[in-house]
Amino acid sequence: MAGGIGSRFWPMSRNYYPKQFHDVLGMGKTMLQQTAERYATICPDENIYVVTNRDYYALVKKQLPMLSDEQILLEPVGRNTAPCVAYAAAKIYSRNPNANLIVAPSDHVILKEEEFRNVIRRGLEATAAKDILMTLGIRPSRPDTGYGYIQFNDGVGDLRKVKTFTEKPHLELAKKFIESGEFVWNSGIFLWSAKSVLAAIEKLLPELHEIFEEGKDKWYTEDEKAFINSAYAQCKNISIDYGIMEKSENVYVMLSEFGWSDLGTWKSLYDISDKDSKGNVLDGNIMIYDTTNSIVKTTSKDKLIVVHGLDNFIIAESDDVIMICPKDEEQRVKDFVADAKAAKDKRFM
Amino acid sequence: MAGGIGSRFWPMSRNYYPKQFHDVLGMGKTMLQQTAERYATICPDENIYVVTNRDYYALVKKQLPMLSDEQILLEPVGRNTAPCVAYAAAKIYSRNPNANLIVAPSDHVILKEEEFRNVIRRGLEATAAKDILMTLGIRPSRPDTGYGYIQFNDGVGDLRKVKTFTEKPHLELAKKFIESGEFVWNSGIFLWSAKSVLAAIEKLLPELHEIFEEGKDKWYTEDEKAFINSAYAQCKNISIDYGIMEKSENVYVMLSEFGWSDLGTWKSLYDISDKDSKGNVLDGNIMIYDTTNSIVKTTSKDKLIVVHGLDNFIIAESDDVIMICPKDEEQRVKDFVADAKAAKDKRFM
Repeated sequence: MAGGIGSRFWPMSRNYYPKQFHDVLGMGKTMLQQTAERYATICPDENIYVVTNRDYYALVKKQLPMLSDEQILLEPVGRNTAPCVAYAAAKIYSRNPNANLIVAPSDHVILKEEEFRNVIRRGLEATAAKDILMTLGIRPSRPDTGYGYIQFNDGVGDLRKVKTFTEKPHLELAKKFIESGEFVWNSGIFLWSAKSVLAAIEKLLPELHEIFEEGKDKWYTEDEKAFINSAYAQCKNISIDYGIMEKSENVYVMLSEFGWSDLGTWKSLYDISDKDSKGNVLDGNIMIYDTTNSIVKTTSKDKLIVVHGLDNFIIAESDDVIMICPKDEEQRVKDFVADAKAAKDKRFM
Repeated sequence: MAGGIGSRFWPMSRNYYPKQFHDVLGMGKTMLQQTAERYATICPDENIYVVTNRDYYALVKKQLPMLSDEQILLEPVGRNTAPCVAYAAAKIYSRNPNANLIVAPSDHVILKEEEFRNVIRRGLEATAAKDILMTLGIRPSRPDTGYGYIQFNDGVGDLRKVKTFTEKPHLELAKKFIESGEFVWNSGIFLWSAKSVLAAIEKLLPELHEIFEEGKDKWYTEDEKAFINSAYAQCKNISIDYGIMEKSENVYVMLSEFGWSDLGTWKSLYDISDKDSKGNVLDGNIMIYDTTNSIVKTTSKDKLIVVHGLDNFIIAESDDVIMICPKDEEQRVKDFVADAKAAKDKRFM
């Protein structure tokens, strides 16, 4: 899944160039490329499919030249994850009714790749054998209020039946979740067979099922694009979590720990990055004075940023936008984007 | 005088594009153009001479197209104000031995233009009649530690003999100066006859006198440029204040009040600019949140700056440099420039 616009990462992530197409961590590869490389150790390249907005077709082609056009699924408009999953599952099912799917965002960091592959291998064995819907759960390290939490049943082993989903709890609640030991973070990485997820969609999102059922003789043909454009016009905006996971009976979570971050926000980038002796994360031509616990990042090699006298700030520069914001108030970034959209013209989005 | 590089105004003022060539106040005209217009109400255009570094010839020509090349005096290297004054005075004297001169920086703000013209008119009457060296003194409104202070003698009227010069006093001393009522700020605007200043240079800076005496048959000829290039190689770096004004007997100050600012620093720009209800000075595409008493300025119309949660800061963006600095620590700007020069390459100077 590579269709998001990453607005919490503005101004680095922009409508015309979202986060997953950036080398956010300064590793010489974009998030999308790192994600594709990760799955290339799990399945052949020809089994990797990217679902994205059609505006990003050229970016995907450029960054993942090994993909054929058949493997790049273009949404005419973003409708959240349920239509995205329905589209990909239906298309892949038409070629291989026994396909097992991993559905993953393209902008996550996974530090322990080998452990991740172990988790995936065991997960796919389970989804191939049983009619279950699986999400990967991350053992929480702090009461983060930005994640979804999954409560799992008592039992043995890492694969547990899901009891409840809670999206972005308040801090007090998050603390209680952690203390109870019964909760993991929802990574948003899903494993299931094409058959199982399509059955769940048919049962719980029958309208969505009908829309994509119409396409069953269009997949991998010249007509796919036109069909999808009209199909998406009928799709409601709904997440796979809300539409399926929170309502199905056969939902399981794999308790995992593979150095995961969704890299959803500036603070998460700060947390995962190497820091200097004063707790600063610096990326670019940066000069700092009396500055601590801050992240200063420019996407341009041709710019100099001089920062004096700040503690716990985000200073981010990208293209034509400079943002200065306290790190603990990064939730305001969404306001900035909305206000810029309202007050100025769209070039800054 | 338009040869300075305005390093206290970095990053807006740059080696390749100093402050006087910018529309610092956002008035649609650069500081140099505003200065030229001010004097064009006092003398004919052909009597306006600009002394600048030869690197800025093209900028001066573009901004003041009414000036002939004879009126643009190009220094091969900056040597402070004494050589600049000696050059211009000698050249103008060769054409008109009775010339009265106003020597003025090109980057000052003068709000009360009519009062300024009154002061100049009365000043020129005095310098035409008597062999005196005059500086314009500004009645101080606060104990500013960034200015030079002039103590004047008892007497009547606005034209007073100078008792002492004190450059940039400590705060306590500045407060005492103000309380005494015997001090004014030194504006750095000088009035004198060409004859008087040349006589003072001959007496107090004999080496400088000799250097420019050699040029007396070169002014307004093709040889002037080559002569000046070799003359400046021999000049010491010395200010007209230190070399002449502090040592002459016939130095007077005109006590004045015409809404003056030397606009030397970010804080002085902040002080003189209109503020919003939260005490912010904003110039450019700026969005602010919970930000007070700050100055945010970008020289580009194509950039957006978003600032959240700052009080009493300077945020300045120009070309390829972004600077964030507490307003009360703007003296550090010189360090930033020096450090950038040492650590990075010269493109950021």
